[in-house]
Amino acid sequence: MREAYHVELENLATKLAEMSASVSDAMERATKAMLESDLELAERVISDDTLVDDARADCEEQAYALLALQAPVATDLRIVLAAIHAAESLERMGDLALHVAKAARRRHPEPVLPENVQPYFADMGKIAVRLARRVEQIIKTRDIEAARSLESDDDQVDDIHRHLFSVIMDKNWEHGVATAVDVTLLGRFYERYADHAVSVARRMVFVATGRMPGYSTIEP
Amino acid sequence: MREAYHVELENLATKLAEMSASVSDAMERATKAMLESDLELAERVISDDTLVDDARADCEEQAYALLALQAPVATDLRIVLAAIHAAESLERMGDLALHVAKAARRRHPEPVLPENVQPYFADMGKIAVRLARRVEQIIKTRDIEAARSLESDDDQVDDIHRHLFSVIMDKNWEHGVATAVDVTLLGRFYERYADHAVSVARRMVFVATGRMPGYSTIEP
Repeated sequence: MREAYHVELENLATKLAEMSASVSDAMERATKAMLESDLELAERVISDDTLVDDARADCEEQAYALLALQAPVATDLRIVLAAIHAAESLERMGDLALHVAKAARRRHPEPVLPENVQPYFADMGKIAVRLARRVEQIIKTRDIEAARSLESDDDQVDDIHRHLFSVIMDKNWEHGVATAVDVTLLGRFYERYADHAVSVARRMVFVATGRMPGYSTIEP
Repeated sequence: MREAYHVELENLATKLAEMSASVSDAMERATKAMLESDLELAERVISDDTLVDDARADCEEQAYALLALQAPVATDLRIVLAAIHAAESLERMGDLALHVAKAARRRHPEPVLPENVQPYFADMGKIAVRLARRVEQIIKTRDIEAARSLESDDDQVDDIHRHLFSVIMDKNWEHGVATAVDVTLLGRFYERYADHAVSVARRMVFVATGRMPGYSTIEP
């Protein structure tokens, strides 16, 4: 049983790494589509989201098969369950990229964002994509130190997100209420995406090493 | 094994029903705290949230024990995994109630919401609480028909949520950008809460009956 278990766990980890790559591509494209009002790219993100949903279903099936056939216990059991949770968060990250792409489509050919907030979203997008790519690397390399570095990237997204509010609420905000509402929701999508990435990273470390990283709890 | 399995599954279902009751209380109090600028009530929701987090950890432990000791397969396995997912969504619903309570605390003694949108939140709050209470009932009574009725309640929340945007973006909106941002985020919290409730209801039907309800897929 042990060998079959490890082969199947390896397959599951590979699938999760692929999902991480997909949702980082999705967020990269969605951010570009939003910043450059690129309708074609937005449409691509929107139609590709079903692939992420399918990948998540595949991960669950693989995990179920592993549980049913190998009946792992103790740490092995927790590893499989961590993988199921990670797949759920990754699907949610795909949904958040989808929301960004839909905003780009909804406002097209108008830009979604006024010029003065675009740099914040360019930065949040860059960090969010980097977070998801690191998750992919962590699962491939089992590099726990890389997982720790995710925390500071997540803090950066939180800082930009907080700063965005002060920009929107400044008395010099001249883009009206509708744009403020768009910026508010979009900011939240990036913040949630980054949060999920950190949560996945922690679970991935657990999947790869069987030990939960010791740093502070991240709000799900 | 079969009998032990059913006793343990029953315990797990009871725990999930309790969690449903807790998060419906939390949303009821958070909504009241927000609408009546009741700081004490807001503080209570905020401090009680750790109980929901603990309950979720308990549910996971029970589910892990069940998997490790009983090694269920096929439908039985899926039921336990559905319970783990349900616990995660319920914890998230608690977090969303917490966000509402924190908004009430942040603006206290000022009201969070201008008078003209308060009725929308009173309605969304009422429906959200009803959704969570129905989830509790579904798990206790195994009434699948009740689960189906959740969909229309969720549609109502979506309708109110959509209508809120038209109120905020109306040219007669006179409450400024900061308030619009608050209303936007709070509206989203109720919408997400209702979505999670429907998702939990579907999983609860599965936990109670071993069959997934046949109605259309709900976006997580």
